[in-house]
Amino acid sequence: MKIILARSAGFCFGVKRAVNMAFQAAESAGHICSLGPLIHSPQLVARLEGEGIRVVNSVESMTDETVIIRSHGVTRDEEECLRRKQLPIVDATCPFVKKAQEYAELLGREGYSVVIVGEAEHPEVQGIVSYVQAPSVFVVADVADVRALRVGKKVGLVAQTTQAYENFHAIAQELIGRCKELRIFNTICDATAVRQNEAREVAAVVDVMLVIGGHNSANTNRLARICSDIQPKTYHIETASEIDNGWLDGVKTVGLTAGASTPEWIISEVVEKLKELAK
Amino acid sequence: MKIILARSAGFCFGVKRAVNMAFQAAESAGHICSLGPLIHSPQLVARLEGEGIRVVNSVESMTDETVIIRSHGVTRDEEECLRRKQLPIVDATCPFVKKAQEYAELLGREGYSVVIVGEAEHPEVQGIVSYVQAPSVFVVADVADVRALRVGKKVGLVAQTTQAYENFHAIAQELIGRCKELRIFNTICDATAVRQNEAREVAAVVDVMLVIGGHNSANTNRLARICSDIQPKTYHIETASEIDNGWLDGVKTVGLTAGASTPEWIISEVVEKLKELAK
Repeated sequence: MKIILARSAGFCFGVKRAVNMAFQAAESAGHICSLGPLIHSPQLVARLEGEGIRVVNSVESMTDETVIIRSHGVTRDEEECLRRKQLPIVDATCPFVKKAQEYAELLGREGYSVVIVGEAEHPEVQGIVSYVQAPSVFVVADVADVRALRVGKKVGLVAQTTQAYENFHAIAQELIGRCKELRIFNTICDATAVRQNEAREVAAVVDVMLVIGGHNSANTNRLARICSDIQPKTYHIETASEIDNGWLDGVKTVGLTAGASTPEWIISEVVEKLKELAK
Repeated sequence: MKIILARSAGFCFGVKRAVNMAFQAAESAGHICSLGPLIHSPQLVARLEGEGIRVVNSVESMTDETVIIRSHGVTRDEEECLRRKQLPIVDATCPFVKKAQEYAELLGREGYSVVIVGEAEHPEVQGIVSYVQAPSVFVVADVADVRALRVGKKVGLVAQTTQAYENFHAIAQELIGRCKELRIFNTICDATAVRQNEAREVAAVVDVMLVIGGHNSANTNRLARICSDIQPKTYHIETASEIDNGWLDGVKTVGLTAGASTPEWIISEVVEKLKELAK
């Protein structure tokens, strides 16, 4: 049985950086906490807990610990609250997310209506929104949302870093005719698109496709949906233990990819198990 | 015979303003000149000459006269040259053109590659280009021109005020994917679109369409082409004297429109002549 592992499987730049920062902080500091789980991988969160990094759900409940800000950032209020408490901060906000926050802030300061393409409930988006010190800030999911908006003469546009470029482009296109000035910052990180495109390519040439990642991870779920459109025999697993040997009966080639929050060791365990089964 | 005169026929806001400023200046000042013909109407230029306003073709040849800057503006060099000569200036640059110049200047100053949608040879465009103090400034006519460009990460977009919105939109759309930041100023004045749309409506319900304006006027020529696509019996005339009575044989309804540089009195003469013929 041949195994094809997508090159882009697993951690993106921002997640890798955040996890490294967390382990380094755990080595040097005593009490550490992250505001919300650092990433959507229960296995990695458990390992971090083993290193003394606990998950807390509000800034208010933090005491004298070092605080890790996770890759999708926090809101302006939360950041200010942490600073007021004078807690040591390890800011692992992804630099691409930081850019989106900064552009949104700049647009608000310069009098633009700020339109953010993304999921209103996502912490990254809530963070970006919070940096806009202007009365007009809107989160839109698609072109239909834009049509319902009442924007001013000056409009600024940014995106949640994991948005699909096509959707962002369509929204920008719709806005051109709605204002006198439109200032567009393309804040999309192409890691998501690269991963999805590669997943499509792998899924097209294999008999079975395995997508590895937290069942609570939005980007892994999306990846599994994309693959199953191409290869109906696609299975979303969190760890090697979820592999059903029956899936591989008579299979010549198996494809593998993993979400942005799937640790390297979990991918390796899956590869090892598949090699075992292939014997 | 019924006569339908388009409401938007004749002078646009900027031309009306420039002509009024010229006549007022002629009343108060002695020697007056305009840099190039004030508008593309030989009849109006002749009338202005009668008032003592002569046409000169270069700043160098100006002496002690008051200078009228025409509605589509001048280049930065020409303006500086006029100021160095300390000649009295009547600046009749259309406020919409001025805005386009100012936005182009701002974009150049703030480090954008500046893209201008328009006709490279048009004095308005040459004026706008001249205000960009940056190495990257490009004039594009259509999307194909944009595809051939090498722009930077920050791109700014403005348009010649008389451009078709659809073309501007298509170019903006093409640019979205070509840079990290795109700042779009829609500097199109909708007078042109309003005039063209109304001309289409009138041409569709008449037996003969007359388009009045200088044979050297680009916007009148375009208007005539638009009308003849709808009503093949479309005639482009400069004055009432060009009307061929044969055109109106058996005609029940005649439509009329006029370019942005066609004076009111020329339109009135055409209307009067048609009323005469209808008797």
